Amino acid sequence: MVSNTPSLRVATASNPLNCAILISGSGSGMEAMLLHQQQVNCLHTTSVVISNKPDVLGIKRAESLGTPVEVVELPTNIEGSARRLAHEASIEQILHNYSVELIILSGYMRLLSPEFVTRWEGQIVNIHPSLLPDFPGAHAHRDVIAAGAKKSGCSVHYVDSGMDTGQVIAQYEVAVLPNDNETTLSAKIKQLEHKLYPMVIDAIASGDFSNLPGN
Amino acid sequence: MVSNTPSLRVATASNPLNCAILISGSGSGMEAMLLHQQQVNCLHTTSVVISNKPDVLGIKRAESLGTPVEVVELPTNIEGSARRLAHEASIEQILHNYSVELIILSGYMRLLSPEFVTRWEGQIVNIHPSLLPDFPGAHAHRDVIAAGAKKSGCSVHYVDSGMDTGQVIAQYEVAVLPNDNETTLSAKIKQLEHKLYPMVIDAIASGDFSNLPGN
Repeated sequence: MVSNTPSLRVATASNPLNCAILISGSGSGMEAMLLHQQQVNCLHTTSVVISNKPDVLGIKRAESLGTPVEVVELPTNIEGSARRLAHEASIEQILHNYSVELIILSGYMRLLSPEFVTRWEGQIVNIHPSLLPDFPGAHAHRDVIAAGAKKSGCSVHYVDSGMDTGQVIAQYEVAVLPNDNETTLSAKIKQLEHKLYPMVIDAIASGDFSNLPGN
Repeated sequence: MVSNTPSLRVATASNPLNCAILISGSGSGMEAMLLHQQQVNCLHTTSVVISNKPDVLGIKRAESLGTPVEVVELPTNIEGSARRLAHEASIEQILHNYSVELIILSGYMRLLSPEFVTRWEGQIVNIHPSLLPDFPGAHAHRDVIAAGAKKSGCSVHYVDSGMDTGQVIAQYEVAVLPNDNETTLSAKIKQLEHKLYPMVIDAIASGDFSNLPGN
């Protein structure tokens, strides 16, 4: 059972938890979160969406929901580890400008540095399309099918410096049927992701984790 | 405020409300419902999906979630009003075979006859992509954009013999922004639909409507 994170206050509807959502692509999960937040009495809000890619669909989706978007591309004029640090410094500047309290990774396809993750410990969450600790990494559905697993699902977890290794907060599961392929499995789990992630951020904002599935 | 329907019992996790979902197309809302129902402690289940169209994506999606599908096409060898009655009689036979208690219309594109609706009064629900009673009909998003409405959303309602005229049970709303078009508006509202409809069926199954939005 996961309990509250010491780094975070308990939010209220009049003073909601201030989030940033980091994306790299289509932003369907981000869209589900923003729509959830725009309903009455939600305890969290997103003040900025940050994309590390220009021209992705997620940018248009965020704008269509009235949320500011900042594009922070990996700098091209710097080499080696300084490149990642400069990129993360730019992101961190935006997070501070917007007084962000919680970072929501939603299809963000870059691994954050241990230094960044340590500074934001307990304040970064991610969603991954498998029943972690099984099938981490960028090809979860393919790996699930290849392994012949009978069930899969999605997991929301705190982020540490590994890939999909942080503490799991909640999970939804779904059966993998004999006629499932990567496409059908991905579609089913995407729907569960859109539901689970807002529920988990509700729990983080309220400090009440008792109604989350899978823990 | 909507209260419980006299036609329906209060369900339990061990004896969940037995639903049929009627579709005509891609079945994304049906998929969201089936996934919701497959989670622990849900008070409703779907024993059969009925499609009036063959070869639609929704059929594959239902099968991929392990739910039986029956295709009931409009008969081609009967003319006039007898045609609709024969079609509905075939559907009704299936509903009885599966001991269905609640009919969930999910993108079902045929209007049901007054006789059918009367027999199932309080036991048929539909979801419509607008803030009913505004913008009923098959082109809600187009009509909302054309009217310059500042907000839209989705509504779950009991079905009567009119088109989108039954009592509204719950609604989610979303802002229509100046840069919205039919496509962006449809995408936003679709996400809200996937969330609202399972919540409403939860309420119907439990008899507790107190936490629904918009009523």
